[in-house]
Formats: sequence, structure tokens, C-alpha cells
Amino acid sequence: MRVIVFKFDYTEHSPGRARLGRITTPHGVIETPAFIFCATKAAMKGLSAEDMRNAGTQIILSNTYHLLLQPGPEIVKKMGGLQKFTGWRGPMLTDSGGFQIFSLGHGSVASEIKGRRMTGRQKTLLKITEEGARFKSYVDGKSCLLTPEASVRIQRDLGADLIVVLDECTPYHVDKHYTAESMKMSHRWALRSLAEFKRGDDGTQSLYGIIQGGVYPDLRKEGCEFVNNHPFFGHAVGGSLGASKDQMQDVVGIATEHLCRERPIHLLGIGGVSDIFSGVEQGIDTFDCVHPTRLARHGGALVKPNTQESCEKEHINLRNSQFRFDADPIEKGCPCQTCASYSRAYIHHLLKAQELLAFTLISIHNVSFMNRLMTAIRKALFENTWVQTKKEWCQLK
Amino acid sequence: MRVIVFKFDYTEHSPGRARLGRITTPHGVIETPAFIFCATKAAMKGLSAEDMRNAGTQIILSNTYHLLLQPGPEIVKKMGGLQKFTGWRGPMLTDSGGFQIFSLGHGSVASEIKGRRMTGRQKTLLKITEEGARFKSYVDGKSCLLTPEASVRIQRDLGADLIVVLDECTPYHVDKHYTAESMKMSHRWALRSLAEFKRGDDGTQSLYGIIQGGVYPDLRKEGCEFVNNHPFFGHAVGGSLGASKDQMQDVVGIATEHLCRERPIHLLGIGGVSDIFSGVEQGIDTFDCVHPTRLARHGGALVKPNTQESCEKEHINLRNSQFRFDADPIEKGCPCQTCASYSRAYIHHLLKAQELLAFTLISIHNVSFMNRLMTAIRKALFENTWVQTKKEWCQLK
Repeated sequence: MRVIVFKFDYTEHSPGRARLGRITTPHGVIETPAFIFCATKAAMKGLSAEDMRNAGTQIILSNTYHLLLQPGPEIVKKMGGLQKFTGWRGPMLTDSGGFQIFSLGHGSVASEIKGRRMTGRQKTLLKITEEGARFKSYVDGKSCLLTPEASVRIQRDLGADLIVVLDECTPYHVDKHYTAESMKMSHRWALRSLAEFKRGDDGTQSLYGIIQGGVYPDLRKEGCEFVNNHPFFGHAVGGSLGASKDQMQDVVGIATEHLCRERPIHLLGIGGVSDIFSGVEQGIDTFDCVHPTRLARHGGALVKPNTQESCEKEHINLRNSQFRFDADPIEKGCPCQTCASYSRAYIHHLLKAQELLAFTLISIHNVSFMNRLMTAIRKALFENTWVQTKKEWCQLK
Repeated sequence: MRVIVFKFDYTEHSPGRARLGRITTPHGVIETPAFIFCATKAAMKGLSAEDMRNAGTQIILSNTYHLLLQPGPEIVKKMGGLQKFTGWRGPMLTDSGGFQIFSLGHGSVASEIKGRRMTGRQKTLLKITEEGARFKSYVDGKSCLLTPEASVRIQRDLGADLIVVLDECTPYHVDKHYTAESMKMSHRWALRSLAEFKRGDDGTQSLYGIIQGGVYPDLRKEGCEFVNNHPFFGHAVGGSLGASKDQMQDVVGIATEHLCRERPIHLLGIGGVSDIFSGVEQGIDTFDCVHPTRLARHGGALVKPNTQESCEKEHINLRNSQFRFDADPIEKGCPCQTCASYSRAYIHHLLKAQELLAFTLISIHNVSFMNRLMTAIRKALFENTWVQTKKEWCQLK
């Protein structure tokens, strides 16, 4: 049996509960605070593993739900695991599959964690029972059951370094009673996940527990105590974070106040620049979100607030006709491969002409932007220049 | 005024009229025989300029017709010309715009040069007169007139090294009388193109004349004599090449027999491996075709005939389920970035999951394949190993 030590080391910094850390995994070290990019179906949308490396990426994640349906964990396992399959040789995380089952089941993914009502999208969640979650495959329409044990086994086949327990991602629009009962079931599922994880543990993976509890402080506190008392490697703050940024800060604050400090803390599904600054201040170590690449597919390029035209937003929309004759790169001084070679005018043309290259070029910039943001955040913590750095990167209200 | 010398040097080799050459342009030298890749709308589908360089590309072309409609030559000019706009700093060619006007007008592009009947596609060609070709913009529906003079002026704004006269691309399904009258009009257009070219010539571009004449040997011969007698830098064999490979070889053979040997000869729209071997034997110096990247978008990867599963074709279809568990690269021993990092199983998964990355990865391989093919062809001519090389690369019938 290989013995590979997972480690989390950190030092405390200001402001608030901010800290600098290092998560050691078999595929390398992640300097935290860090951003985890979503390679949903074992592929970054339009980017190669080499593009990701060149843009300074430390870690990516893939979604168990999608990979379970296509190509299936048996194929990924046979091909040597996700890192070998995808050509990405750095650290990886997989989620449990639960988030997609519940969010696709209730409505859209983003709607739920951000507290919006579900859309008219076809629902695929069939039934939640003590045993697990039954859902309909979007690939072939078959009914599938995902149990806590199955999720761990699938994630073992996928082979990411960091894996996550199955939980019910409680929607925003349910009452406190439902949220509490759901959380209790998620805790029972977490114990089953831990047992299954222990059965197959060969030292190559580590398990994260998830804190649910919706927007209710006492439930969140109970969720923190539960994970603190069980042998998880790290903790992830999940479920509904409320309907406003203030509510999200409250929920995250309660979690990081009560979570044990010796384990890394991940905030699920959050990727806005100002949200990341708030999260780091509250003690979050890692973030993930589809935002950088999804934004790119709509022509949006992430820029610092000092960039003209972005005074209200964290990005510029390169589809706008104002960029037709703009010979500048997306961001002056940006060292990414896109900004080194291509103008806003060219990318504007590619978007208008519906050329795939547009999405690749903007994604390269956005990934590089997020990685540079996290590097700047770590530097600011180390050098104690938080206020200036936040002002440079983040639209202050 | 800048004085930049365009040059074509060559040495005769066997078999047939095969030769090794060098086309010198302001943006670099093209070693011939060479393949010219189609960056239709000033972008390779899914590939960056760097991807093209890394795959060993010497020269790319863009289509005047598409760029005229979007973004418009005034924008490309203002951005410093195609090379600066696209980030591709090597040699470039633009066509006249005529091919798309006529082929989109009569049916599909490929159907016409390959002698198939027109499809049900909406026709955009409105009228051909002595003045030029009137067509409907697919971008905004406006009626546009492309004259020989306008084509040269637009190509001057676009700024490619090698530019081409406007001609009528005679369809296959017209009679000899139409073909002859059309060719005569194309010759009158060519003289107008030469006059316009001369008026604005600053030494940074060179003009190709086109040989029409359909499948009629006497007309093709007349077309050759016309271009030989006028000061073109190079010649391109255009129009219908017949309905079969044999007929294409006859048409190309007549052209290369009668064309002056001191100028480079381009064969328009041909890119199959065996067709390229035949073309080189007949004295063709350069080829272009959308085939390598279009094939990639359908999951087709170019391979040598010794690769299993490709005994009947010049490619394998990675959508086939036989590749689900195939851990090999597309081609063993291929030095391209795709084959260095990705398995057939992974690309099969990406195709099934409709991930854009699939097209990029296969395109990188196909572009690399074509460039390695042309390098092998040049080596075979130099070392007099034609028969072995042809057998290695090309399915012999």
C-alpha cells in the first residue's frame, strides 16, 4: 500500500480570519487561498490541460454526476484515473454528484445557491430517500440511484486527490424544519460515506465533509460541530447561502467561526472577485465556480476596476461594438497568452463571426486573471497590504 | 516606398514534373510543396496562431468574401492588416472572394469543384455582369457588388502577401459554350485586376492569376497561355476539376503541362492525401483545403494507412465506440501536442460529451499531420525516395 501524506499547514494573517495555507496532495501542493476551476465533464470548456498550466492554475475539479453518466467511472478508472485521462497532472477534486442531482432536480444550479426561484428546466430528480437520491440520466433517460457509498466508490474510480461526501443540497425555498431534517439525513449519509471511504482508503485520496443548514445560524453551527467531530480532511460550506451578498457573508461567517481551524475550508460555487475577498477575510481557503469560463462563453472578460468601461462590473463584454477598433489587449500589462497576442478588436470579430477561438482566448485570460487574483491575495496577506490590494482588484461599494 | 523582393526558386525532381521550391514573401519563406490552411474568417476553427506555429505550419489563407462582410476590410486595415490582426506572423494568402460568391450562389463549395449537383442551400448570387458579381450579404441581407478592382483593393486592405484575381468559378454543370464565354470574361477581369494591382503596388503583395476552362483541354490550354502572357507572380488552377479523380488528374495535368515553369502553381481546394501525391507528381507547388479542420469537427483524425482501422480511408472516426477504452494516442509516434498528451479514449469522450476541446485537439493533430506529410514529400523529392514515401503515407489502389 502506498502511504502518501495529505497535509494542511497554515499561518494566521489579517484581516479577520484570513490565512495563508498549503494543502499537500499526491499530485502537488496547493497554495491557499486558491481558486479551483471547473472541468465539469473532465474537460475545461475549450482549454487544454496545457492552457490551464500556462495560465498558472493549481487545481481543477470535475463533477461526479456528469462523469457517472458519461463516460462512466469504469472507463476513467481503466484509463488510469482523471489525471491521466485528462492530461492534467496537478491536484484535482471531485464533488459527490449530489449538487447536480439536487440543483438540476429543483431548477438550475446557480439559482439555488443564490436563492432565486427554480426555472422551467426539466426536473430530473425523482426521489430522495434515506438510501440515497434517485434521478433520471440526461444521457439515456434511465433511472439511477446515487447512495453515499456509491458516490465514494465512484470518486475512488475517478481518482481525484480530494473527494467529497454526498449530501442533500437543501434548496433556498424550503422552511427551517425541512432544512433541519435534511441536514440530519446528510449527517447520516456523511457517516456512511466515512465508513465506505475508510474501507477502501489507500492513502491516495482525502475526504471533505459538507456543512449544510441553510440560512439558519443554529443549524449551521450544528453542521460545523458535526464535521468537526468526525475525521474529515477538510470542510466545505454548501447548500443555500441566502438571497443576498449580506446574507451569504452571514452564513459564511457563522461557518468559519465554528469550524475547526486545523482543516482547509472550501466555499462551494462562489467565484465573484468581491465575494472572494469577503470569503478570504472570513477564513475561506479555497473557492470554485464555473463563472470564469461561463462568462467567457458569453463574451465577458474579467478585468480590474481601473480598466475603463468596467466601473460597475467585474468584467467587460467584448461583444459590445465599442471594441470594434480597439487595438489594446483585454487588459494592458496582463501576461496571459491571449493578452500577449490578441486585441479586443480581434476577439470582438471572433465573437461576431461565432468562431470557437473567441471562447478559448477569453477563457485563457479569465483563468489567468483568477490565478493572478489569488496570487495577489496571498501576497497581500503575506505583506500585510490587504486594503490596497482589495482596492486594486475589487470594486468597492 | 518599401522594396521587398518576392521570389520563386525551384529545382526539378522526379517523378513527373515534381519539384522542390521556395516562395519568398515579406513574412517569410514557404518551402514547397506546401499545404495552405484555411483560416476562413481570419481564424483557424478552434486553433490559435500559436497552435498553428507549434504544428509546423508555413502559411495560412483567409477568405476575402467572409472578411468583406465581417468585420470589413476597413477594420482589418486599421488593425494593421491580417497578420497583425490574427496574431499569425507568417506568410498569408487571400482569395478574391469570387469562389465563395459563385459556389455559395450555385450550391455548396465542395459540390462544385468536385462535380456534384448543387444542394438545396439558399442561393446568394444575384447576378453576374461584365462589371462584376452582385450577391446578397449573409450577414445583413444587403446587395453587394464585387468587381475585379474592388477585390484587389479589399485584398490590399487585408494585407496578405499573396493575393488572387477575381474570376468566375465556372460550375461543373454548364456546357462548353458557357465555360468558354465565362473564361473569356474572367480574362478581361484579370486584366482589370492587374491594372488595379499595378496602380497600388508598393512591393508588399504579389498577384496570382487563375486558370479556368472547366474539363475542356483546349480551354484549359488557352487559360494557361493567357496567364503565362501576363505578369502574374503565380498561377492557380481553379474552377471545376471534374467529377472523378481521373478527370481531376487530367485537368491538372493539362494545366501543369502548359503553365510556365518559372512561377509557383497552386491547386485550389484540394487536400486529400492521395490527391496531394498526384498533384505533386504533376508539378503542383501548393494546395489548400478546409479538409483537415472540417474533418476534425466531425471527429475525423488523419492517419497513415498503416494505422489499424484505416485500411479504406485516410482517417479514423474517433466517434466510433471502438475507441472508448483505447489508451493509445491518435497516431503512435506522432510528435503533435495532442498525441503527446491525450488518448483516443479521452477524445472519444470529449466528442460524446460535446466538448469544444475535442475539435481543437483533433485539429491540432490534423494540421500537424498535413505539415508532416508535406515535409515527408519534400524529403522524398530531395532524397529520391518517392515510391516508398507514397506507400507510407498514401493508400495505394
